[in-house]
Amino acid sequence: MLSNHLSDGIGMARVPWSQLPSSEEPEGLSTLEDELMAAARNLAGVGAPVESLDYEVIENYAYREQQAQKGKIWFTYTIMVKWLFALLIGIGTGLAAVFINLAVENFSGWKYTATFSIIQHTYFAGYLVYVLINLALVFSSVFIVTHFAPAAAGSGIPEIKGYLNGVDTHGILLFRTLVGKIFGSIGSVGGGLALGKEGPLVHTGACIASLLGQGGSTKYHLNSKWLHMFESDRDRRDLVTCGCAAGVAAAFRAPVGGVLFALEEVTSWWRSHLMWRVFFTSAVVAVVVRSAMSWCKSGKCGHFGSGGFIIWDISDGQEDYSFQELLPMAIIGVIGGLLGALFNQLTLYITKWRRSYLHKKGSRVKIFEACLISVITSTISFGLPLLRKCSPCPDSEANGIDCPRPPGMDGNFVNFFCSKDKEYNDLATIFFNTQDDAIRNLFSAKTFHEYSAQSLLTFLVMFYTLAVVTFGTAVPAGQFVPGIMIGSTYGRLVGMFVVKFYKRLNVEEGTYALLGAASFLGGSMRMTVSLCVIMVEITNNLKLLPLIMLVLLVSKAVGDFFNEGLYEVQARLRGIPLLDSRPKQFMRNMTAKEACKSQQVVCFPRVVRVGELVSALRNNQHNGFPVVDQGQNGETVVIGLVLRSHLIVLLQSKVDFQSSPFPCGPRGVLNSHKLSDFVKPASSKGKSIEDIQLSEDDLQLYLDLAPFLNPSPYVVPEDMSLAKVYNLFRQLGLRHIFVVPRPSRVLGMITRKDLLLEENGSSATMELQSSSVRGQRYNEEMLRSRIHPESPILDSLLIQK
Amino acid sequence: MLSNHLSDGIGMARVPWSQLPSSEEPEGLSTLEDELMAAARNLAGVGAPVESLDYEVIENYAYREQQAQKGKIWFTYTIMVKWLFALLIGIGTGLAAVFINLAVENFSGWKYTATFSIIQHTYFAGYLVYVLINLALVFSSVFIVTHFAPAAAGSGIPEIKGYLNGVDTHGILLFRTLVGKIFGSIGSVGGGLALGKEGPLVHTGACIASLLGQGGSTKYHLNSKWLHMFESDRDRRDLVTCGCAAGVAAAFRAPVGGVLFALEEVTSWWRSHLMWRVFFTSAVVAVVVRSAMSWCKSGKCGHFGSGGFIIWDISDGQEDYSFQELLPMAIIGVIGGLLGALFNQLTLYITKWRRSYLHKKGSRVKIFEACLISVITSTISFGLPLLRKCSPCPDSEANGIDCPRPPGMDGNFVNFFCSKDKEYNDLATIFFNTQDDAIRNLFSAKTFHEYSAQSLLTFLVMFYTLAVVTFGTAVPAGQFVPGIMIGSTYGRLVGMFVVKFYKRLNVEEGTYALLGAASFLGGSMRMTVSLCVIMVEITNNLKLLPLIMLVLLVSKAVGDFFNEGLYEVQARLRGIPLLDSRPKQFMRNMTAKEACKSQQVVCFPRVVRVGELVSALRNNQHNGFPVVDQGQNGETVVIGLVLRSHLIVLLQSKVDFQSSPFPCGPRGVLNSHKLSDFVKPASSKGKSIEDIQLSEDDLQLYLDLAPFLNPSPYVVPEDMSLAKVYNLFRQLGLRHIFVVPRPSRVLGMITRKDLLLEENGSSATMELQSSSVRGQRYNEEMLRSRIHPESPILDSLLIQK
Repeated sequence: MLSNHLSDGIGMARVPWSQLPSSEEPEGLSTLEDELMAAARNLAGVGAPVESLDYEVIENYAYREQQAQKGKIWFTYTIMVKWLFALLIGIGTGLAAVFINLAVENFSGWKYTATFSIIQHTYFAGYLVYVLINLALVFSSVFIVTHFAPAAAGSGIPEIKGYLNGVDTHGILLFRTLVGKIFGSIGSVGGGLALGKEGPLVHTGACIASLLGQGGSTKYHLNSKWLHMFESDRDRRDLVTCGCAAGVAAAFRAPVGGVLFALEEVTSWWRSHLMWRVFFTSAVVAVVVRSAMSWCKSGKCGHFGSGGFIIWDISDGQEDYSFQELLPMAIIGVIGGLLGALFNQLTLYITKWRRSYLHKKGSRVKIFEACLISVITSTISFGLPLLRKCSPCPDSEANGIDCPRPPGMDGNFVNFFCSKDKEYNDLATIFFNTQDDAIRNLFSAKTFHEYSAQSLLTFLVMFYTLAVVTFGTAVPAGQFVPGIMIGSTYGRLVGMFVVKFYKRLNVEEGTYALLGAASFLGGSMRMTVSLCVIMVEITNNLKLLPLIMLVLLVSKAVGDFFNEGLYEVQARLRGIPLLDSRPKQFMRNMTAKEACKSQQVVCFPRVVRVGELVSALRNNQHNGFPVVDQGQNGETVVIGLVLRSHLIVLLQSKVDFQSSPFPCGPRGVLNSHKLSDFVKPASSKGKSIEDIQLSEDDLQLYLDLAPFLNPSPYVVPEDMSLAKVYNLFRQLGLRHIFVVPRPSRVLGMITRKDLLLEENGSSATMELQSSSVRGQRYNEEMLRSRIHPESPILDSLLIQK
Repeated sequence: MLSNHLSDGIGMARVPWSQLPSSEEPEGLSTLEDELMAAARNLAGVGAPVESLDYEVIENYAYREQQAQKGKIWFTYTIMVKWLFALLIGIGTGLAAVFINLAVENFSGWKYTATFSIIQHTYFAGYLVYVLINLALVFSSVFIVTHFAPAAAGSGIPEIKGYLNGVDTHGILLFRTLVGKIFGSIGSVGGGLALGKEGPLVHTGACIASLLGQGGSTKYHLNSKWLHMFESDRDRRDLVTCGCAAGVAAAFRAPVGGVLFALEEVTSWWRSHLMWRVFFTSAVVAVVVRSAMSWCKSGKCGHFGSGGFIIWDISDGQEDYSFQELLPMAIIGVIGGLLGALFNQLTLYITKWRRSYLHKKGSRVKIFEACLISVITSTISFGLPLLRKCSPCPDSEANGIDCPRPPGMDGNFVNFFCSKDKEYNDLATIFFNTQDDAIRNLFSAKTFHEYSAQSLLTFLVMFYTLAVVTFGTAVPAGQFVPGIMIGSTYGRLVGMFVVKFYKRLNVEEGTYALLGAASFLGGSMRMTVSLCVIMVEITNNLKLLPLIMLVLLVSKAVGDFFNEGLYEVQARLRGIPLLDSRPKQFMRNMTAKEACKSQQVVCFPRVVRVGELVSALRNNQHNGFPVVDQGQNGETVVIGLVLRSHLIVLLQSKVDFQSSPFPCGPRGVLNSHKLSDFVKPASSKGKSIEDIQLSEDDLQLYLDLAPFLNPSPYVVPEDMSLAKVYNLFRQLGLRHIFVVPRPSRVLGMITRKDLLLEENGSSATMELQSSSVRGQRYNEEMLRSRIHPESPILDSLLIQK
């Protein structure tokens, strides 16, 4: 009878915490499910001790039935909405990709058409027009990014990766970032810089997903209430994962590649039922993009059609390979590893330099820098082909490719600064072209000796330099397509030597170009399975899979010898603390206690004076605080974890302040707070303790923390090795772990059979109870039998004050 | 100075446990790494209290340096061996697949050639020959399985799934199972039963991997010492995962599909660095199979070549689809879901019936049953086409396919019991043929109206019945190919209607057959992404991906409405307790304490009398026991977990028995036990306590458990919700969790920043320390600073007795 009134209070009052969208455990398997679970558990009265089996508990039955009823409908509804969202993300990302591609292709098309028509008269005017159009496009891009959406610069993949690992970077998922990303990439890619639109599309997909998840943008009054249902971090992160996959699927028209990219490269936690939803999103994207393209085929989309979505179909390429060829292919892998690692290192240095010297000086410098690079890029890509002598066209009947290509069209064999009609400029074919078309030309089969080694080498050096320099400018920029450009250049170069020395007729230079592309991406980004599948999907040729694998194995191994992957390097540079999937080696030598020994743990008692709370919050930056209370025998007991963000909400609302220093009664805490009060804003930093003004009187009041705490955070004994703690933290996606003394006794052991409960009768019935009316009597008995004095639970542990 | 001698004892003595290949935590992220970690930690003297910084600790420096040196080389060596094993698994599985395919194709080839040549004269003799050959093959298969390798029956996938989930089924990974599986599938598939060789190939791959991992089979004296290095459960399970992927890759020539199958369907834990190794294995398989096939192309392999490895290339099939077609495709999905769920349910009933009535009567009944089914199958597949009227051949110039096919060859349009030369029997084309060829014929494009609806319906009903009846006989049996057969039949049927009603010329019946196959597999096995990729890879046509996705989404959803997937149903039937990736709903209402309240926890003191130990082990079946000791202040402290299997090893060897009831000194426990003593045998049940004979004197002795325990198992507070406990257990792959009282205080909080240690100087240095000689001085300081009296660790907690 001791704790009757009190424990009911908790029995009821703990509900709010359990429904709080805890930002604890950012993505792990615990968030939403545990909330529901704890809610159900509390409503079921499990929290109440024996003595309190009176009318409140009977009332709880009604609550529970209601909850169970609502639970089922709610559950179905939630699942349906999740699939609906997957559909919407797919459609949204697909349309965004179509829009970007349309815009880029049309701008590029107009640009090249204009330039080519002017250079019929004078090359200098043509050059000027070319430079100015590029400059205008790049300027628009950098202006949008610097003045409107600073988070839209770069590829965004490291930030998204960080977000899914549990680190929020401010502003990456805002509506303005989405807009900036879309229009920024149109400018930067259309402007001919050495960067791609694929990385930004991943970010775009993630933004679309996140905005859908929070029901639109609040700031721009675009939100709708009924979409506003994903309040747990885990659900949001699931949506963003879908968005990433959709982005890759849209960028490369590679749905399986998209799923694997999300799985391998981006997410940190993965569940197989999420996989299927991600796959569905990718499929939707594929259908949307395909429909849009077939709609465009009739010529309604201007220049769009032949280029744009990259399927560099090489299904007519080399299908067989001899064992001799494995050596040059391995060499391609080594080159890829070396150049890729070098790329990562150089971009690291240049980004560091930019950060510390250049970009400090404000957005004008950024704009000037981007414009300067644009002019340089234009000059090189226009000027270098001028220095190159044209080659006579090959016999066009032999391969069925027009040479030179018809004016104003996309295609191979560009006639540029050539004296005769039946000639082409091999450097212009890859340099004075959109990157998509250039890659298509490099991959092309049945075009032996199209390029001279000299041209390819020139291009390789120049483009590599441009890609390194361009990396880190304040425009949306992907590294996939530049990587493919670089790789396919040296790949084709190796292919030329193979053709020359091995004198085998079935060797295709284009296939080597493809392998080169794979090797460079492997050496730089260090992706494996997903990259492999993406390469297969964009070339539409499954037969090359083993070769791509071989090349990737080699290039990744070589690259790993020197440094980390591009995204990891960049994430670290941006201060995004990614947790690896494995603990570091030295953690095996440390204990949990050692890892946190410099810390001062700040504990709160269950009922805390508001003044103390405020000063504690002001004096440290901790995000979570243990709450202790006294047990029945006077010993202290840790009763849970309370989050800073939740405390701030409580301090701001003030409704829970009480004048008595004793635990509150069964007052309806559910009524005083809405669930959404505790939701963390998705893309802002939230309130801080400094924002809260409290009067002197307020500071003298008390606050009972029990209703708002997480009653059972994960704990580890003090001398557990840090590697084990790391695994716990990382695998379950936690934010706080309590380090506690060694336990004094073991109350039970959980083994596999304890978790396979449905096979024993009573538990199987439990699962059914909520749906049956007749079960109520039984439930009551269950409840009685489960709550016996030997099982001390939180409430009975607390002494009545 | 109190605990000087004692704690050194532990500091040294705990080493052995830490090297024990704990069968604790079967696959989680903890096993090997934690062992290494704990070893390093103990050698580093972290376990020693302040007072003991004397010569033993100095000695520990030497140990540590040595360990660190060995650690690096060992680490590199381990990684290299792991990759070597991946290579070997790939080669082994590839060769096994080639062998099985060669044998099956040749047996089938001879069978059909013989039958066809005889039916030129008399149909009855042909029938007899056909039945007898089939019977002989099936008999060989069932005889091998029943008398030599009982674990080789069925597909083996549920068992492998269970193994990777942490449940060992006796005998599934033995050498004899491997042999039985290979030769058994040759017999059962060659004998024309309604089953496939693909599931068994997955099991074959897993067996090969496991046998390699344990260094061959001990029983058959095929083991080699230097391979014998994977002693932790986790490494073994990794290898088996590779083997599964290799099996799928070999069965379908689908390397990406293999990886995804292993990822989605088989494994329960997955790490991204394992993914790459699995991918490599699959790639090796692809290369091996491809080489073997190109070697066979020259005709060295008899009948092998055209059939065998299933690539049902439909790259010349339908590439585009209109929106109208989505409706019939969705209908195919619904049919697939219904028929698949029905298949699962029927096979469940029939397997239950077999278990309880038929197979109890011994292996003779099993043999008789298989032979009877063989005769029935042969009779139906020979007899039914006889009842069917032949159709005239279509214009063979139109599609370039021979009609009728040349005698004795594989191909479409089988002339069977036809009066004229230019006729074919459509039912014989699918029924009187190997399943691979039949599917190829069903998938074939440009063969409109090849089959009559009547034939397809007849075949569907008969084959479905045969597949259900055959499922569960005592032969190796996969369900992929029968599923594809069934699915493609009704798919083609729907396709025929689409062609008829929509009157569109670009609709291919073969494409609908493919979608039907996907839908049936989706409806039965409920795989998603992997199945999708496998279907794409076996048809070599990426463009159908969105359609396959659509069909799979529908069929899986429909199937899930009725029952669980085939493998889950079968695993449950076989008593394999798979842990789902998500906790059950009702677990949210339970606490950890409730889950184990019926248990009696058996604790051991640190130094236990042998007699007590033995009687405790005899009186219960627990696999792990908490060990408690008294702390400095006389309170009890839980000092770790000791495993039954390790205790049995200790009881058997007797070398650690001591006469004093006090903790042992720093005796070299490392010397008294070899690491391999504690290794769990991979495929036998191990010793039980009943096998151990101890004298009366032995029973009076004592055993100090401290050196052999796991000092920090994971713990949960008693009132944590069971769903949270489940996540901990399942995500980390544990075998035991201690349920302990709520902690009395919090010593520290682990947050993300505590785990990102390399960024703060001291920890980064720590990582480097082991490789530098100059670091030794520094280490000593580190050690002093880390071991200060405020950080009580295990050893200082123990009172000196």
